[in-house]
Order: sequence, then structure tokens, then C-alpha cells
Amino acid sequence: MEKKILLTDCPDDKGLIAKITNICYKHQLNIIKNDEFVDREQGRFFMRTALEGIFNDATFLEDLDMALPQGAERRLISTERKKRLVLMVTREPHCLGDILMKCYSGALDVEITAVIGNHPDLASLVQKFDIPFHCVPAEGMDRVAHEQQVAALVDEYNPDYLVLAKYMRVLTSDFVARYSGRIINIHHSFLPAFIGAKPYQQAYERGVKIIGATAHFVTDDLDEGPIIEQDVIHIDHAYSAESMADAGRDVEKQVLSRALQLVLQEQVFIHGNKTVVFK
Amino acid sequence: MEKKILLTDCPDDKGLIAKITNICYKHQLNIIKNDEFVDREQGRFFMRTALEGIFNDATFLEDLDMALPQGAERRLISTERKKRLVLMVTREPHCLGDILMKCYSGALDVEITAVIGNHPDLASLVQKFDIPFHCVPAEGMDRVAHEQQVAALVDEYNPDYLVLAKYMRVLTSDFVARYSGRIINIHHSFLPAFIGAKPYQQAYERGVKIIGATAHFVTDDLDEGPIIEQDVIHIDHAYSAESMADAGRDVEKQVLSRALQLVLQEQVFIHGNKTVVFK
Amino acid sequence: MEKKILLTDCPDDKGLIAKITNICYKHQLNIIKNDEFVDREQGRFFMRTALEGIFNDATFLEDLDMALPQGAERRLISTERKKRLVLMVTREPHCLGDILMKCYSGALDVEITAVIGNHPDLASLVQKFDIPFHCVPAEGMDRVAHEQQVAALVDEYNPDYLVLAKYMRVLTSDFVARYSGRIINIHHSFLPAFIGAKPYQQAYERGVKIIGATAHFVTDDLDEGPIIEQDVIHIDHAYSAESMADAGRDVEKQVLSRALQLVLQEQVFIHGNKTVVFK
Amino acid sequence: MEKKILLTDCPDDKGLIAKITNICYKHQLNIIKNDEFVDREQGRFFMRTALEGIFNDATFLEDLDMALPQGAERRLISTERKKRLVLMVTREPHCLGDILMKCYSGALDVEITAVIGNHPDLASLVQKFDIPFHCVPAEGMDRVAHEQQVAALVDEYNPDYLVLAKYMRVLTSDFVARYSGRIINIHHSFLPAFIGAKPYQQAYERGVKIIGATAHFVTDDLDEGPIIEQDVIHIDHAYSAESMADAGRDVEKQVLSRALQLVLQEQVFIHGNKTVVFK
Repeated sequence: MEKKILLTDCPDDKGLIAKITNICYKHQLNIIKNDEFVDREQGRFFMRTALEGIFNDATFLEDLDMALPQGAERRLISTERKKRLVLMVTREPHCLGDILMKCYSGALDVEITAVIGNHPDLASLVQKFDIPFHCVPAEGMDRVAHEQQVAALVDEYNPDYLVLAKYMRVLTSDFVARYSGRIINIHHSFLPAFIGAKPYQQAYERGVKIIGATAHFVTDDLDEGPIIEQDVIHIDHAYSAESMADAGRDVEKQVLSRALQLVLQEQVFIHGNKTVVFK
Repeated sequence: MEKKILLTDCPDDKGLIAKITNICYKHQLNIIKNDEFVDREQGRFFMRTALEGIFNDATFLEDLDMALPQGAERRLISTERKKRLVLMVTREPHCLGDILMKCYSGALDVEITAVIGNHPDLASLVQKFDIPFHCVPAEGMDRVAHEQQVAALVDEYNPDYLVLAKYMRVLTSDFVARYSGRIINIHHSFLPAFIGAKPYQQAYERGVKIIGATAHFVTDDLDEGPIIEQDVIHIDHAYSAESMADAGRDVEKQVLSRALQLVLQEQVFIHGNKTVVFK
Repeated sequence: MEKKILLTDCPDDKGLIAKITNICYKHQLNIIKNDEFVDREQGRFFMRTALEGIFNDATFLEDLDMALPQGAERRLISTERKKRLVLMVTREPHCLGDILMKCYSGALDVEITAVIGNHPDLASLVQKFDIPFHCVPAEGMDRVAHEQQVAALVDEYNPDYLVLAKYMRVLTSDFVARYSGRIINIHHSFLPAFIGAKPYQQAYERGVKIIGATAHFVTDDLDEGPIIEQDVIHIDHAYSAESMADAGRDVEKQVLSRALQLVLQEQVFIHGNKTVVFK
Repeated sequence: MEKKILLTDCPDDKGLIAKITNICYKHQLNIIKNDEFVDREQGRFFMRTALEGIFNDATFLEDLDMALPQGAERRLISTERKKRLVLMVTREPHCLGDILMKCYSGALDVEITAVIGNHPDLASLVQKFDIPFHCVPAEGMDRVAHEQQVAALVDEYNPDYLVLAKYMRVLTSDFVARYSGRIINIHHSFLPAFIGAKPYQQAYERGVKIIGATAHFVTDDLDEGPIIEQDVIHIDHAYSAESMADAGRDVEKQVLSRALQLVLQEQVFIHGNKTVVFK
């Protein structure tokens, strides 16, 4: 008995759930969990079906393709293959550390194939976990040249996703396009508040009573990509920008880890500039 | 076009989602939202299907009954009929007030047919909203005699649910059995902690750092019925039992209102001593 | 024995806590609770002292004034006098209803002297609680003329604070200046995100995973005044702008009520464009 | 300029804040932050004063002792000396990992002198961070003999606190008494619910909608010691006991880390079977 996830994303139509679940039933695949959503404004249907059974992928997908409307996308994903990540970091260890620890303990079922930093600071932490660390300094290099070096490294590892675990550089359109829909960032504010640099300083100046973090897919527009997960913590007047940053680290790492978990378990659809997330 | 909710609760079996959604499709009923859950330990399947279309209830249910396994329960519920509540109260106005206000504004789509108090204190609040208030004092009467008076009143109003909105008396088995699965209580602690009387005093003495509230169906065992909703707030050493009670009122009323909303929208199945709640 | 609150707000200096608490001790006033904060960047000291005893206000304040540095502001406030509010509303009842109910039950220790609406919709709700409701329609009138009518009414009631409980009009600088530091607004987003009109529509379009509410003092700059309290709730892709608004009502009313409670209990200092809030 | 924390814990009396802050002022010590609390029921006063200046400990404490009532306890603690921890673990790495990472990054300012496990599983994780790991298996040994070996090891490291980071054995009274007020445990439920073994299994059977964690000082009575910190997360019917345990790990590690941070920064007083925690 194998377990697979079927992801369907297509124009809305009558009877889609019946049609898809029929095909599962016909193929004697047991539905462990099924989630669906219709965006009525856009007329789009999303369904995630966790299946168990003996799969004949070719005939199953053939049957599906006959049943689904034009413009449908469907993917049948084995849960057995570990997904591959490349992490990108700068100097701050908390998000990186949480991910390393969760892989080590098995709480995140993923392979970290490599960590790339634009500073050497985190090399020794990464090496404790016997994972390759590559330092690609950006100094004295233009953005494009730097990213070419990074991309060359990334491509060696052939990751499913790139995770910006407090990578403090803005990426070019070319780099983003190269890994479209596959770069996940953690931003240290509850977006769309405090876009851009120094969100805790901005939060301090505005005198807010909550601070937060946002995990999102990276697109061309800085901090404007589809949001996967967000959370906040309460603060008060006694917090400086620095103590906000200290307090914010825990929520940053949690939000990034939860977003990663959702993405790795195929619970997230990208839908234009939004996400559909089945929890 | 009508809207109805189909609730299915039956022994687990292969292809149940396909079978049920097929029948919906065959009857040209559009599925707005579908949720299902299988309790694998107990081998029981639960599904809530929000439907839209032109219903022929008799033939639709006939088709369903053919498809469902023995021991299935299914209900097809129109969302058009307003459900009827009787509220039972003692002296505290906060839960009652929140429900009255939410009915007044339409946030809770329900009819409060009457409020019954064992004290007269809340009469004037209820009457502001042109709802009958009946005071049934318990003094000088044994428990059974008192409940008979209450039950006689309740039955005049023929409610779907009885809501104990801080009703500070324990009910007898007979009374509970009479309205089995239809009495909802709010308890002012995060159950199973602080069962019974004076939970805030108990919380004060234990020195906890959170207090909470639990909405549950009432069964024979005090504070042991199926839990619908729970929440907590943080407190600290500076809270007395009294200031905990003050702070707790907001979480009590929210938890009760959220539980009521869930029950009224047919999102809750009772499953032994637990609930299955589709949010 | 009386209870009073001493609020001190002055340039920071050595020994301020000692000096102030000494004077309290000399006057045989017992300190029930003391909170202080120093904004080191601005060099400003804030202290709230809850006192119990027999007060000779004149000599106590005289002693204080001798001890405090130049530029000090201090207020000694009796907790016996009920503060007076005027509420301003448009059509939505949830914030108004929560405040009315909390005054009715005593949870908010305040007198609602009147409610002013620019629409008549909420008259009957207000009148249930025997509170004057005045409708001042804005149609066919310029902003200044409308506000003059409102201000004339407000002034008749001589309130301590004006509370905009979902008052859906922007106020002029003149109106704001007239009640400087005394107007409290609830905005239905976690500011500074989604400033201005239709924040739930903005939230829907951005695809955020949290929505929230912000209670703040009103200043000249729309939605830019000192924030008193904020909170959020989690949402997902299935929320429309309309269902966000439905879900957001509870957090709006809670945030406004909590902010009001803090202001009424003299726990809030306005400090430039921020607040110092002692909880 | 040095920084020290003054902790005062004494029978309540008039003018205590004035007396203590006067002495600080007289010694030209600047008060960075001051918190106090009076337990009126017990007649006990607690104050935490964060000081900055040039300290003459002997004369300062002499002055204090003259001013404080009989039965006072006061400690003046330098924030410069790193506190020393011994961690005790069994098999689960998440709490241990979070503490290791936070020490590594400096987020927790503490020295982990050693980790003691009753199983060898976590040796390699600990050794990555160049910290001694000692395995003291309990098999084939009575409880007292095992604890003697553990205590002998602990004493070699002379720690300020022992942290039970998911140490799955119950300690004897003798062991607890030996490190009285210095053992911190994380329990995987919101106490007092689900005391004892397998709290997630208990939570599953009860059908609760929240699960949580509690950090507390260890006393003779299992899971009954003074609570430092608690938190919860929401769950639903779809969680098994096992998936509750998975979900609970993050809240366990956060609650333990927050409790440790509070204890290490001298923000926690033990007060009978409760704590006074200044946040």
C-alpha cells in the first residue's frame, strides 16, 4: 500500500468532486483526507486528496484527464520521496537553527542538501549537522554576478524549494523567475505592514502593540508574493526596536517552519497572488 | 435555488465520498462546501455537505439510503428555517447579553423564543429585546419539582436547543435525558481542569497562568459532556479570583457564541463523548 | 479611605521614583500598584501610582510640584467620579452593543451620556438602554456644517471622551483639535496595514492570513494616531471580504472595549504619536 | 557602571517602595525598571529592581536591612555572571534542541554545563555543541541508587538550575529536596488538567479542543509545583494522540524556553505553591 497526494486545480464545473472521487473509487484508492475549495469570484476549483492503495499512475491520470475540464492542472505526488531544500542565509541563526533541528529530529521530513550564505558566520552551525555550507560573498560584485554564482551552486543540488531563512538581500527578477513558485521567504513583519528594510524599526516608530512575521512565496515585487502563513505576538511601549527583534525571533522561526511544513506536505496551492492552504 | 446541509454519519466504508457526491451530482445539486472525517479507531465516517439547487428531498434521500451502509444516519436540513432557542440563566448578564445582541444584529441567525431564570435579575435586560422572560425560583422546592416547572415552560416553546448561559444549577439525569444532545453549557474553565464549583477560585489557588472557558453538550456527568469549543486568556499573579472572573467573562461569552454559531450552522456532530466540528 | 490615581509624566531625572513615593509615604498614602517607564531615547519618565488613604490634594500636589523637574505634568484623579462618554456611530451595532451591554452590567464603569449617529439605524438599540440618541444626517451638508452640529451636541454632554464606535466618516482637523487626545477610534485592520477605506476588501485582495483591529486616539492624520490596543484573528483562503467583516466584528468590539477600559482606568499616557499603557 | 538586580520579598509594610528606592537613590543607583506586587491575602510584598551604577554591596545591603521589616529576604544579583544549567533528558530532542540553539545564538544567556540522559539517544546532538553528555541508565537499578548517581554528576557541575527537558522519570522527595526551588520541569499539558503519564492520550480520550504545556518548579507532589509559564494551541477532532504530541512539541519548547528566560533574568519569585513573575 502506497500513499500519494492528488492535487487538482481547474476551472470550476459541476460534479467535480463526484467525478474525481469516482475515479479514485474505481481504482480502489482509499481517500484518507479530502479538501476542496472553490474561488467563486475567479471560477476556480482546488482539491487535495490524500490517497492510499495500489497505484497505476498512468491509467489513473488518464482517467482523470478524461474527466477534468480544459485548463486543469493535476499532480499525483508520492509522499515517499523526501523533498530537497537549499537554505539561503545571512547572519541570523534562529530560523536556520530551527529548521536544522527539526530535520535532525524528523519533525520536518525533508533533506537539507546545502546552505548558502552571503556571509561565513553560520558555517560552523551548519557543519555541526554535516550539511554542506557555501559562502558566496557579495562584496565587490554586482548583483547579477553574485546571483549567477548562487544559482550555479543551487542548481548543483537540484532542490525542490529554496528557503530564504533570513537572507538579507533582495533578489533580481531573473533569479526569482528561475525558481518561480519555489522560493519561500520569511519577512519579519505582518505584511503588508512594514514592507522593506528594518520592519522592527518601523514598528517601533509607529508604536504598534503587535509585531509579527509572514512566510510567503517570493515574486518580483518585494514582499508582495503569495502569503502562506502569518502570526503575531503582543508587545508594549517598553520594547525598543532591538528588543522587538529579540522577541520576534521565535515568531519568525515558527511561522517559517509552519509554512515549510505546509508546503512540504503539499497543502499549499499558489493561486495568483494568493495561496489556498488546506490545514 | 435552495440551500440545504446534508449531514452523514455512518460506519466507514469504501467509496463513501464518491457515492454521496455522485447522488448530489445526479440530482444536479451543487456542492458549495464539503467536509469529511473518518475516525479510524472507531471506524466511523462523518460528512457535511453544503448543497445548492432544486431539491426533491424524498427521492434524494431514497437514493442516499440505497447507497449508505447499514447504521447510517443522515439528515438533510434546510438553512431557511430559523432555529429556536430557549436560554437558561441565573444572575450574570454577559453571555446572555452577547447572544441577545448577536441575535438583534443578525450575527447569530436564530430565534430566542424565551429566557428562563431561576432568579429575576435578568428580566429587565431580556424584556428590552421583547423576549419573554420567565422566573422559576428554586427556593423551597426540591430539584425534581423545580425542573418539572422549567421543563413545562421549555416545552411550550419547543426549542431546537437549550442554552445554559451561566445557569448556575446542576441538572438531573431526567432533565438531561429529556433534551438529550440539545443542551449546551458554558463552563468557566478549560475543562477538564477545575470541574465543578468555583473554577476561578480553584484557578487562583493553583496559581495557573491561563484561565479559560469551555462550551459543551450537557450529559449526565457534570462537566464531562462532549466539548464543542474552548479558549483561554493569559493571566498573572496579580489576579484575584474575582479579577479572574472579570477577565474571564469575555472569553466565556466568546466561546459560547462561537459554539452556538457552530451548532446552529450544523457544523457539529456528537460522536460518543466527543464532537466532530467542521470549521 | 479614598482611592486616587496619580499620573506623572516628566523629563527623566535621578531618584524620581524615590521622590514621588516618599511624598506618598509622608502623606500616609498607601501605594496599591505602581508602574513606571522611562523612554530613554526621549528622556521622558512616566509613572502611574494607584493610591489609597486620606487625601489632602492641595498639599500633596504642592509637595509633588516641589519635587518634580520642570516640564512635569501630574494629575491626581479620583476613581470615584464616573467618566462620561459620547459615542458616535453610523450603522453597525456590534461595537456600540458591546459597550452598551458592558455599561449595563457594570463591566465598564462609565456613563454613556449620549449616542450620536449620522444615520438613524441604531436609535432603537440605544433607546432600549434609556440613553439619548441623536441623529445628525450628513446628507446635503458640507463637512464643516455637519461637524458643527455634531460638536454642538457633544458639548451639551460635556464628555471626557468621544468614542467612534464604527463611525464611518473622516473628521476634520478642526473637530479633532477641539477634542484633542479625547477621541478614540476603532479601525478594522491591524494598522499600519490597510489604512483608509474598506480594509477587509484590501485584506481579501492581498490574501493575508490574519485580520485584525486597532483602537487608537484620533489625530489629524487618518489612521495614524497613537495606538492603544491591537489584536488579530487567523483566517484562510475561504474568507470573502464579507465573511472577513463578519469574523472581524468580534475582534473589533473586543479591541475597542479593552482600549476603553484601559483609558477609563487611567492606564494610558499619550506620548507623542505613541502610547504608554500600563497593564 | 554595573548592572544588578535587587529582589526583595518581605512582609508587607507601609512605605516599602519609598524606603527601598530611597536607599537606591542615596547610593546613586539608577533604577532602570521597577516592579512590585503585594499579595494582600498573605500580606507579602515582592519587588524587583533593576539597577545601574557603582555598587558598594556591603553598605547598600546594610542600609536595606535596616529599612526592611523582620522576615525580609533580599538578594542583590549581578547580571554579569552567566548562570549554570544542567539539563536532564530522556529521548525527545525538541526542548533540548531549542535550548541548545538558543544558547548557541546567545538568545539565552546561560552556560549549559552538562546534559544527563537516562538513555543514550541524545548524546550525539549534545556533542555537536561541545557540551558533556552523561548517560546514566536506570535499568536494573532502584530509584534511589539511580538518583544518587545522577546527583553525584549534577554536583560536579554545581549548576544554578536543573532543567528537566522532557526527562520522563519521576523524582524522589530526597532528590527534589536536594535542589529545592532549583528544578524546572516542562509538562505536556495545561496543568492541572492531565496530570501524570500520557497527557496527550488523556487529551485525546477527553476530546478537548486545546492542548498545552506548563513549565513549573518541581516539588514533592507530581505536577503540582509552582507554575512559571503556560500556553496552549488549538486542535480539532482530526488529531490522534500521536499528532497532538507532534503539534504539542512546539508549544512545549516555547513554554520551557520562556520560563527559563524568566528565571534566568531573575523575574520569578517562588511564593508558596505559586510564582510571582514580573514580565
